[in-house]
Amino acid sequence: MINRQFRLVRRPSGMPVAEDFVLDETQLPALGDGQFLIQNRYASLDPAMRGWMDDRPSYVPPIPLESPVRASTVGVVVESRDPGFPVGRWVFGQNAIEEYSLGNPRTARLIDENAMPSVTNYLSVLGVAGVTAYLALELAEPRAGQNLLVSGAAGAVGSIVGQIAKIRGCRTIGIAGGAAKCARLLERYRYDAAIDYRGKDSDQLGEAISSAIPDGIDIHFENVGGIILDAALLRINQRARIILCGLISQYNGPPAPTQNLWQLIVKGARMEGFILTQHWDRVPDARSRLAEWVNTGELKVDEHIDEGIENALSAFRRLFEGTNEGKMILKLA
Amino acid sequence: MINRQFRLVRRPSGMPVAEDFVLDETQLPALGDGQFLIQNRYASLDPAMRGWMDDRPSYVPPIPLESPVRASTVGVVVESRDPGFPVGRWVFGQNAIEEYSLGNPRTARLIDENAMPSVTNYLSVLGVAGVTAYLALELAEPRAGQNLLVSGAAGAVGSIVGQIAKIRGCRTIGIAGGAAKCARLLERYRYDAAIDYRGKDSDQLGEAISSAIPDGIDIHFENVGGIILDAALLRINQRARIILCGLISQYNGPPAPTQNLWQLIVKGARMEGFILTQHWDRVPDARSRLAEWVNTGELKVDEHIDEGIENALSAFRRLFEGTNEGKMILKLA
Repeated sequence: MINRQFRLVRRPSGMPVAEDFVLDETQLPALGDGQFLIQNRYASLDPAMRGWMDDRPSYVPPIPLESPVRASTVGVVVESRDPGFPVGRWVFGQNAIEEYSLGNPRTARLIDENAMPSVTNYLSVLGVAGVTAYLALELAEPRAGQNLLVSGAAGAVGSIVGQIAKIRGCRTIGIAGGAAKCARLLERYRYDAAIDYRGKDSDQLGEAISSAIPDGIDIHFENVGGIILDAALLRINQRARIILCGLISQYNGPPAPTQNLWQLIVKGARMEGFILTQHWDRVPDARSRLAEWVNTGELKVDEHIDEGIENALSAFRRLFEGTNEGKMILKLA
Repeated sequence: MINRQFRLVRRPSGMPVAEDFVLDETQLPALGDGQFLIQNRYASLDPAMRGWMDDRPSYVPPIPLESPVRASTVGVVVESRDPGFPVGRWVFGQNAIEEYSLGNPRTARLIDENAMPSVTNYLSVLGVAGVTAYLALELAEPRAGQNLLVSGAAGAVGSIVGQIAKIRGCRTIGIAGGAAKCARLLERYRYDAAIDYRGKDSDQLGEAISSAIPDGIDIHFENVGGIILDAALLRINQRARIILCGLISQYNGPPAPTQNLWQLIVKGARMEGFILTQHWDRVPDARSRLAEWVNTGELKVDEHIDEGIENALSAFRRLFEGTNEGKMILKLA
C-alpha cells in the first residue's frame, strides 16, 4: 500500500515556502505484532508547528529533515495487530501529515465518532487549541466582572477563550484583523467589543483599547505579540495577569521587541507563559467540560477545512496570513 | 527655625542634573495641635525615586514641582504636640529630603534606636530595599537546590536577595559591575558564583551565565533589565520564575526592548512584577525576620552613607553610575 507524506526537506527561513517540503510516496511496511495502521482523515494545522520546523532546542525536538511534518490527526484503524485498536474504530493521535500512520501507542486514543457534532472537533475544541484555551485561561484566574482582552480573538484559541471568559462572567474585548472577523467576534463569540488591528500603529491601537476598556485590563490573553502586547501592557490594572499563549506575529521572523515590561513592576502584574506539556493531568477535565459546552450549544466552534494533502502548505500558511476562519484543519481522505 | 529642602524644580530628562533641583530655605511654621516635628537624620536614596520625578501616572503620584524630593527618613522628634510621638524619640517615616519634616501620621513609626546595629538599618535592611528583597523573593517560591540568578547583585536589594536565597538553600549566582563588586558578592554575600557584566555584549554575558549555571536558571531576580534580562531568558528552565523588581538600566532613558519573551511560552515560565504597595500586610513579618538575621550575623548589610543635603544629587546619581557600595543613604544632620 502506498503512503503519501508531506515531508520537511529544508528548514524554512521566514514564511515556509514550497521548496521547504516535498510530497513523497513510500511503500507501507507490513504490520508487526501489536501494531496498527491508521488512515488519517483529518490533520490539525497549528502555529506551533512552525517552531518545530526550526533547528533549535524547545519543548519538543525539531522535526527531523526528510520526516513527515508532525501533526495531530483523527483517522480510522484500517489494519490492526493490536486488540486495543480494532479495525474500523476512530482514533486521535500525535501523528503526521501523511495518509497513513503507524499507530503511536503513547498518544493514540480511541474516540467516539458520534459523541460530538463532528469528528473534526477532536482536533479543534477538544484538541490542542481548545484545551489550551481552557487551561491557559485558568492560569489567569478569571473572575466575574473583570475585563479580558484577547488578541487573535477570532482564531482557534482566541474564539474559545473569549467564550469561556464570557461564561465565567468577564467582560470580553477581542482584537482581530479585518471587519469580517470583528463582526464574528461580536455576533458569534459573544465578545462585548471588537478591535480591528489592521491599519493601526501602536498608538492608535492603544487608543482603541483605551476606549473599549476605559477602566483598564485585568487579564490580557496574548496570541499574537508585537505592538499588541506593548499597547496592552500600557493599559493593565494593578495585579493584572498576562497569559502568553502564542506570539504568532513573530514565528516567521526575528523576535519582536517588547518595550513596556516596566508596567509589570508598577502594576505588580504577572506574565505567564503557557505550554500544554506542563498540564497533561488536567486535559481530561478540560476536554469533558468543553465537550459539554459544545453539546449544549453554549460554545460555538468554527473549523476551516482545506482539502487534500497537496494543499498542506497553502493551508498551513493561512494561519500566518490570517485567511482562515476558524480552526485550521486539513482533510486528508 | 530654618528648614533646608532639596526641591524638584524641573522634571529631569535622562540622568538628573543640577538644574533640575534647588536647595532652598524656608521658615518652619508653628506646630498645630496633634502635630510633631522631625529632625531628619538620614534619608534613603532609591532608584524608584527617579520614576517619581517623571510626570506620568504610576503607583504613586509624581513629586510635584517646587516640592522637596520624597524619601523615607529616620530622625528624631524635636517638637511635639502629639503625645504619641514624644520629643527625643526616633521615628521612621515617608518624608522628604529636607532637614525637618512635619510628622506624617499615616507613615510615621516610632523605632527603637538600640534594636539594630545602626539606626540607618531602618532605611536599608528594614527599609524598602530589605523588605522588597524578602517579599519579592518569596513570590518566586525559592526551594533548596534551585539555581537563582540575581542582577544588580551587589546592590541594596540584590545583596540581600542573594543572602536570603542562600539561607533557603539555593545556589546563588550574582551579576554585578566590576571586579570589586564581584569579589564582594563571593566573599561577603556568599554568592556561589559572580559574573562581571562590564565589557560584555549580550552573547558574552549569555556565555558567562551558561558557564556559571550549566543546568539552567530556576529563578531570575531582575533589578537591572536590558541585555541582562534577554540573556537570562534564553537560559531559563521549565517552570522558571522571573521576578521583575527593578529595571535600573532604563530609568533614565527609553524603555529597553526585550526580545526573548517567547521563552516564557516554551518553558511555561512566569515573570512577575513586584511593587511593595501590594504587600503591606506582610511587611511586619519581613522586618522581624530580617532584623533577626542581622542580629544573629547571618545577614550582612552594607550602607553607603554620603553626608550633607548639599550632596543629595551626587549621592542619588551614584545609584545609576554604580559607584555606591551598599544601600545609598544621605546623612542630613
